[in-house]
Amino acid sequence: MNFQEKLEAIVKKNNSLLCVGLDQGEWEFNQKIIDQTHDLVCAYKPNFAFYEALGIKGWENLKKTVEYLQRYHPGVVTIADAKRADIGNTNQGYVKAIFDELGFDAVTVNPYFGKEALQPFLERKDKGIIILCKTSNPGSGEFQDLIWEKVAKNVVSEWNKNNNCLLVVGGTYPEELRKVREIVGEMILLVPGIGAQGGEVAKVVKAGLNSNKSGMIINSSRGIIFSANPRLEAQKLRDEINKYR
Amino acid sequence: MNFQEKLEAIVKKNNSLLCVGLDQGEWEFNQKIIDQTHDLVCAYKPNFAFYEALGIKGWENLKKTVEYLQRYHPGVVTIADAKRADIGNTNQGYVKAIFDELGFDAVTVNPYFGKEALQPFLERKDKGIIILCKTSNPGSGEFQDLIWEKVAKNVVSEWNKNNNCLLVVGGTYPEELRKVREIVGEMILLVPGIGAQGGEVAKVVKAGLNSNKSGMIINSSRGIIFSANPRLEAQKLRDEINKYR
Repeated sequence: MNFQEKLEAIVKKNNSLLCVGLDQGEWEFNQKIIDQTHDLVCAYKPNFAFYEALGIKGWENLKKTVEYLQRYHPGVVTIADAKRADIGNTNQGYVKAIFDELGFDAVTVNPYFGKEALQPFLERKDKGIIILCKTSNPGSGEFQDLIWEKVAKNVVSEWNKNNNCLLVVGGTYPEELRKVREIVGEMILLVPGIGAQGGEVAKVVKAGLNSNKSGMIINSSRGIIFSANPRLEAQKLRDEINKYR
Repeated sequence: MNFQEKLEAIVKKNNSLLCVGLDQGEWEFNQKIIDQTHDLVCAYKPNFAFYEALGIKGWENLKKTVEYLQRYHPGVVTIADAKRADIGNTNQGYVKAIFDELGFDAVTVNPYFGKEALQPFLERKDKGIIILCKTSNPGSGEFQDLIWEKVAKNVVSEWNKNNNCLLVVGGTYPEELRKVREIVGEMILLVPGIGAQGGEVAKVVKAGLNSNKSGMIINSSRGIIFSANPRLEAQKLRDEINKYR
């Protein structure tokens, strides 16, 4: 089963477009969050920065987290939020690290080097390659506003030969999200920025759905994992997203 | 001593603008390369992809490499070629990982998120923040040709308040290197792409020097570390670079 098929199956099974961002580096913490939310989500997305901050221990915790999901909840998608990119022969190292060593289903990558360099990622037909387009941060316009439309156009027309590409568009920019949806047709979009970063669910869902009332992975991190009741918050957000589908 | 001062001292001491890229993940291999070349270089630059491909072991090898340099050759600059970038609060994790956990003197970062997001890096006055501008790979033009001049202009005018910014310009693009030098004045440039990737030393040095006949860190990786005699190759390349200064 490739990434797209795995995602489609879990979206249907859990009736959820929600991805929970595991944005802290502790393994036991992740275990608790997963135990409480695995039937409410389509994906988990650990951001590598929080793990690397703990050094070797963090890398161990990443591995334990993926292994736990593979063992107990193998249907749930795992996204390595690593935002990697380098020149071509070097990217082979990242591909090996993230897909073969750690065992993730998908990875976020930075488009700055262009398609030619990212080929080692794009060649992995079984995996999801999630390319940054318009990021959620307040200052993302500095350079992206000159190229995000071109990123979306190139990815849909030239990068997606293996039908394994997705794009990142911040939920803090619903107008850009709407335009990206127009450009990319049915392609799946990963949308961070809901909750703590200020993105509004109704606007985001309306702007980003594809013709199947799906086509999005909507991520929340801090708003769920650091709440008093992660299960309740995940359920509320899943249901709110579904209300607008 | 901050990064710029440390670099200036070792460039003078070893009469060298040469950086050796430690682009494989084994610690014992690095030890041998360092033992053979430490008096011929200004810097070592491990690319993280090669280490992460080995998982936890690779992370340990990175740490051992930096510790060895700090103990036996503390004057030589260490550059984490990690090409990191994320939104602001997340970058704090990478800053902690690379500077505090691993102890590097400098890091390469991707400008895609803009200055606002990279603030946690830019605030580290003691370290070198090396921003990708025009990368050495054949397909780097896809998006960079729309923004690399703006990256150079913004970095020199707005990002460099702490005088800790450098730029990456591929040695495979001497004409762009010359233009970046015009834009940034005396700023130090990290120039990969010499040797195996095809960049020519004479062209690169002439295009990239600042008014002090310095201002560059010129990297070679495969051409030195996988050669039959790494010391000889490092010496030849150092001397060839100096011939055109």
